Amino acid sequence: MTAPDVVARLVAELGDRVDVSDAALAGARADKSGHAASGSPLAVVTARSVADVQTTMRIASETGTPVVPRGAGTGLAGGANTGAGEIALSLRAMDRVVEVRPDDLIAVVEPGILNADLNAALAPLGLWWAPDPASREISTVGGNIATGAGGLLCAKYGVVRDAVLGVDLVLADGRLLRLGHRTVKGVTGLDLTSLVIGSEGILGVVVGATLKLRRLIPGEARTIAATFGDVRSAAVAASAVTAAGVQPAIMELMDATSLAAAHRLLGLPAPTPGAAQLTVQTDGPAAHAEAEAIVAVLAGAGGTVRLAADDAEAQQLWTVRRSMHPAMETLGTTLIEDVSVPRSALPAMFDEIARIEQRFGLTIPTVCHAGDGNLHPNFVFSGTEVPDVVWDAAEDLFQSALRLGGTLTGEHGVGVLKRRWLADELGADQWELQRQIARVFDPAGILNPGKVFTP
Amino acid sequence: MTAPDVVARLVAELGDRVDVSDAALAGARADKSGHAASGSPLAVVTARSVADVQTTMRIASETGTPVVPRGAGTGLAGGANTGAGEIALSLRAMDRVVEVRPDDLIAVVEPGILNADLNAALAPLGLWWAPDPASREISTVGGNIATGAGGLLCAKYGVVRDAVLGVDLVLADGRLLRLGHRTVKGVTGLDLTSLVIGSEGILGVVVGATLKLRRLIPGEARTIAATFGDVRSAAVAASAVTAAGVQPAIMELMDATSLAAAHRLLGLPAPTPGAAQLTVQTDGPAAHAEAEAIVAVLAGAGGTVRLAADDAEAQQLWTVRRSMHPAMETLGTTLIEDVSVPRSALPAMFDEIARIEQRFGLTIPTVCHAGDGNLHPNFVFSGTEVPDVVWDAAEDLFQSALRLGGTLTGEHGVGVLKRRWLADELGADQWELQRQIARVFDPAGILNPGKVFTP
Ligand SMILES: Cc1cc2nc3c(=O)[nH]c(=O)nc-3n(C[C@H](O)[C@H](O)[C@H](O)COP(=O)(O)OP(=O)(O)OC[C@H]3O[C@@H](n4cnc5c(N)ncnc54)[C@H](O)[C@@H]3O)c2cc1C
Ligand SMILES: Cc1cc2nc3c(=O)[nH]c(=O)nc-3n(C[C@H](O)[C@H](O)[C@H](O)COP(=O)(O)OP(=O)(O)OC[C@H]3O[C@@H](n4cnc5c(N)ncnc54)[C@H](O)[C@@H]3O)c2cc1C
Repeated sequence: MTAPDVVARLVAELGDRVDVSDAALAGARADKSGHAASGSPLAVVTARSVADVQTTMRIASETGTPVVPRGAGTGLAGGANTGAGEIALSLRAMDRVVEVRPDDLIAVVEPGILNADLNAALAPLGLWWAPDPASREISTVGGNIATGAGGLLCAKYGVVRDAVLGVDLVLADGRLLRLGHRTVKGVTGLDLTSLVIGSEGILGVVVGATLKLRRLIPGEARTIAATFGDVRSAAVAASAVTAAGVQPAIMELMDATSLAAAHRLLGLPAPTPGAAQLTVQTDGPAAHAEAEAIVAVLAGAGGTVRLAADDAEAQQLWTVRRSMHPAMETLGTTLIEDVSVPRSALPAMFDEIARIEQRFGLTIPTVCHAGDGNLHPNFVFSGTEVPDVVWDAAEDLFQSALRLGGTLTGEHGVGVLKRRWLADELGADQWELQRQIARVFDPAGILNPGKVFTP
Repeated sequence: MTAPDVVARLVAELGDRVDVSDAALAGARADKSGHAASGSPLAVVTARSVADVQTTMRIASETGTPVVPRGAGTGLAGGANTGAGEIALSLRAMDRVVEVRPDDLIAVVEPGILNADLNAALAPLGLWWAPDPASREISTVGGNIATGAGGLLCAKYGVVRDAVLGVDLVLADGRLLRLGHRTVKGVTGLDLTSLVIGSEGILGVVVGATLKLRRLIPGEARTIAATFGDVRSAAVAASAVTAAGVQPAIMELMDATSLAAAHRLLGLPAPTPGAAQLTVQTDGPAAHAEAEAIVAVLAGAGGTVRLAADDAEAQQLWTVRRSMHPAMETLGTTLIEDVSVPRSALPAMFDEIARIEQRFGLTIPTVCHAGDGNLHPNFVFSGTEVPDVVWDAAEDLFQSALRLGGTLTGEHGVGVLKRRWLADELGADQWELQRQIARVFDPAGILNPGKVFTP
């Protein structure tokens, strides 16, 4: 079947859910990674129901046409990028909250709802869904599940993997499976729900999810900021907080370049040259005592420490951290990396970053979820193509993280941008096994081909 | 190759790790479910190293001999039962703590260590591994992982799935894979660690694990007991606690028959006829306030409520709950069931149990992890074979749980005893998909054949 025939069939069965406008096709080529697929997709299908998804997959399957599932397209690994000959299948319009059970602490949702919209609907009931990627205002719950997203609060409150009980999945051939359960516990057969979390659209299309909720945390949160003469000292201090046995809700580290860029963007006075900052939040019944304990640890580690006096001051501190992405965008095109290391290895990983900056003659502004050891080194360049020197430096970064007992990607996923290095972390045997498992779900390989695994 | 040849090869390569004594072979036929495999195993191999496991699997694979991995044999689903023509592969002797990192909150362990022994090693460091099956004194961490074990504390502190970062797995053909990572977060490729958790020995042999630890909870725990006129009222009260937004660390329900049996065994005065009991524990910084809130909810729900004055009284209350298993054993042979329902459906599930008791003329003493909706109805009978009427009643129980949005097994697994009903919960398509995934790990089907899936 030719490409026009495929589009004709989609239109015949799905009508106005099929968009072939230049704007739609161009939009589907890229996510927020700065990378775009080559060539233009066949069509963008915006599903309004599970049946729409099944129809799309059936047509795709019968015609051997690749399909790329897509949430809000905020991914940072190129996972949702759709290229020549492929159908972009958007779940964004399937955005209903189907059910909320405060007594069972579960919600059933469609995949396209934005994380922040879900939480806005839950808040009046005293509930929340804990995963809180920095992109929560703009990314979908389905995308969060498909990437296994993390966030700022996850050292204390868990990642997506800890907050999903079940997933409804449409397979490549259009069949619908209901994975998982509505109960807190359940061990019937293999845990396919967990397998789908973080699978980046290669196993099936997530068309519904049963989420594990939490009660809103009572009491007032406390916020602490501490500045250090250099990033290594800040990293040592962060490790000391973890080792001291206090559990911050959030602990974020900004190195000198990113801190300065954020201050510049916000029109704040420039920080002391070279200074790095830790911003820490405690919450829950012990928020106050934990904040005091953390102040002591940070001061003992040589920091200049400030406990925010009120909510307004706390908000301002967090605004600095949240301005990191826009601040980087003022510097040029950004490749945001995502290595993760055991928390005790944070200082060593910052040493590696300093070495890599030297070796390749680059500046690599870095922010870090210091509570869980996940770093986002930012490679800034001009133009739209990632220069070779940046890839070489990124490769050195990945190998350094692996040597320190870490991983290529803490939360953004593999997509197209990290697939070259996947086997370095998994080993050849596991890589091959994983690929075979994907083939069980999708024997013809039409779901998001070329993502995660090199073709 | 004949059976004696297989044993000869095992002995040639593994020497005194191979036991063919009658006592060893008889012991490997059964777990704690009361069910035993038919026929006698070929041999029991007690591995002392990863290499021993690999050698065993290589021989098994080359000779087409089935292998049943085994921890401490405390399972309740027949999963470790080894029968005619099969090798029992015991991991119990591989029981070292390889590494503990208090700063990273991780431990690396061999699979054969008992859960309680691990926690005894961690306690002096102020650490613990949260999964706490009632069998923690007698079951292995590897078995806990292979069954995806739950426990009393899991509504608040999570199950095994939430507490394992990585697993070393020997495949059917003897190759060793390292799944997962040492970092808190990591999304490199498919989450095979989660897939192995709860896989009951059919995907591979767990030979090592990287565990996620917690700090010991500071402060004093509080214990509350409340009695109710009947089990339904106790279940309604338990649901009210969850719905009130307080998070008990433990919340256990004992119905009248089990409460009376435990009192009898301990020589305590008989409880009021028909009375059921809720035992609740709160812990952490808000333990006191939460206990008071729970007392109010339980009293409001019609309970006779007692807040334990001191640790001694609290211990006595928990001793009653912990005596359930031995108390049941005084009544006859027990088939311990394990259905789980959404917490709001607990009262309805107890109604179903009452109906099933009536319909089949049985008494079904039931304890329940009320904090997470997991019930253990006990079928008591005489002799060693489960009578047909018990299986019929159990089938009714499973279907009732599924109708209420629940699951066949909250924590014990499928093993041999529940495989007949697996497709009822999964659906035919998912059942087949799961089976194909198992075949990717073990193409010849030599790992724990006949478990989980009907042959
Ligand atoms: C400013 C900014 C901050 C960010 N901060 C974080 C952060 O803190 N933590 C974090 O983890 N990520 C972060 N991200 C990355 C991104 O937001 C997350 O990966 C997010 O989960 C993607 O959701 P999405 O709806 O945009 O998915 P998309 O980008 O549309 O898709 C991502 C991947 O999931 C697949 N997919 C999407 N929906 C489905 C579905 N329904 N079924 C099957 N597959 C599907 C796609 O095929 C693709 O492979 C950030 C991004 C930006 C731009
Ligand atoms: C009194 C009592 C109370 C109990 N309470 C609970 C409870 O509260 N919660 C709960 O979840 N369970 C409970 N159980 C059940 C049982 O203790 C758990 O299932 C436990 O996790 C089994 O561990 P084990 O080492 O005894 O495993 P085994 O019984 O030896 O094996 C169980 C299954 O795991 C597989 N297996 C074991 N080790 C490995 C390995 N290293 N690699 C691969 N596969 C392996 C076996 O093949 C088998 O399928 C209880 C049992 C008893 C007798």
